[in-house]
Amino acid sequence: MTNPTACIIVIGNEILSGRTQDVNVQFLATRLGSMGIGLREVRVIPDIARTIIETVNELRARFDHVFTTGGIGPTHDDITSSCVAEAFGVPWEQHEPSMTLLAAHFEPGQFNAARQRMATLPRGAVPIENPISVAPGFSIGNVHVMAGVPRIMRAMFDSLAPSLGGGTPVRSTTVHAERLAEGALAAGLERIQDAHPDLDVGSYPYERPDGRRGVALLAKGTDDASLSAARAEIVALIVSLDRTPIDGEPPA
Amino acid sequence: MTNPTACIIVIGNEILSGRTQDVNVQFLATRLGSMGIGLREVRVIPDIARTIIETVNELRARFDHVFTTGGIGPTHDDITSSCVAEAFGVPWEQHEPSMTLLAAHFEPGQFNAARQRMATLPRGAVPIENPISVAPGFSIGNVHVMAGVPRIMRAMFDSLAPSLGGGTPVRSTTVHAERLAEGALAAGLERIQDAHPDLDVGSYPYERPDGRRGVALLAKGTDDASLSAARAEIVALIVSLDRTPIDGEPPA
Repeated sequence: MTNPTACIIVIGNEILSGRTQDVNVQFLATRLGSMGIGLREVRVIPDIARTIIETVNELRARFDHVFTTGGIGPTHDDITSSCVAEAFGVPWEQHEPSMTLLAAHFEPGQFNAARQRMATLPRGAVPIENPISVAPGFSIGNVHVMAGVPRIMRAMFDSLAPSLGGGTPVRSTTVHAERLAEGALAAGLERIQDAHPDLDVGSYPYERPDGRRGVALLAKGTDDASLSAARAEIVALIVSLDRTPIDGEPPA
Repeated sequence: MTNPTACIIVIGNEILSGRTQDVNVQFLATRLGSMGIGLREVRVIPDIARTIIETVNELRARFDHVFTTGGIGPTHDDITSSCVAEAFGVPWEQHEPSMTLLAAHFEPGQFNAARQRMATLPRGAVPIENPISVAPGFSIGNVHVMAGVPRIMRAMFDSLAPSLGGGTPVRSTTVHAERLAEGALAAGLERIQDAHPDLDVGSYPYERPDGRRGVALLAKGTDDASLSAARAEIVALIVSLDRTPIDGEPPA
């Protein structure tokens, strides 16, 4: 059985303008990989309704799971929720349990129209609990809509994860070596990749501010025997190049 | 005249697996914005030839500039360059000036087949100088192919930037306020956005580890008079909510 696939849609002008450094993709990529869900694509798109609707509809047909981050707050540019309703062709309407939850969260008189938008969901959506700031995310079909603020997104993903299922966890094994160059190991590494078509074998150069540099060599896959064999071959390759193989990623 | 548009294609399994935190998008987004080139979309895709070819061809038809990062090193999974050749329907062939440059850079006997791949470019490509590690990026048509290693990518962008042209620089003005909630300001902020359809007006909550929290309010655009007016209205909005407007982004 092949693992389920996923993509992420990052919705937000603030990423495209450079104002904000996205950190949600790395979090989700890591968590999904450990659950055996393969992240295959990420798109960063602006807060434009037509773009959001078309992107959601294109990607929910192509991947088993679509995760969106951003655009579910109370302000005028928070249009993800209504766009997802439109993508699914369902009404965008007040969700009574979420209305009750949010009404109780705010001081009397503070649960204004803007905040009520955060309890307005596509019909049929299942809320994703938000233990940080109450206003929920939601799932509809295979689309999971989450906040953009990293702390809230992470809490929502924790709420959502048990319902996602998954596949065979993807594991990786890493060896690094100092003063090793990719150009010197490329031919040997390709032979290792060719010998293990079930794995994803890669090399990643690093360079630290204090001048330490080298390459990390990594094999990734779901079969432990294949991973062990590839690791032994990577170690032998490094030794054959007169360098010292060191376990794991290079220190920061 | 409207500003030219751009997208970025981040090519690399290491981003999709969570191994590596991308930092190139924020750098490019910021630099392009300051040059008046609007970043409209980012895609992160795996090292799969068909995906790279199709994505390059889709996006080069839609945007004025396409920037790619990653996949131009010497190893087996560095397939960006040959894929771009295929996307343009041109041969992928040794580029003599780059061969000469790289041959001179390596010790005798070290300019092996893997390293010669880095001097193999789509026919008609114009090299992008790499002052860090010599192996060039390149432009072909409106597609600009750069390294994934941030220090090298930045140096390549510096080499490339003067040839890109640009438009009216996008400027932004930011005011923040502590203990302000988005839900309280949403209605007022929407009025400011509606009054300035030429601007992009947004609010971004922040929360610091020491507990300081609030919202940054930002207007972005190319018209200084409109930006000044919007800024004054943002300041008045904050004051009307009994908070203190503070110039600029909140401190880290």
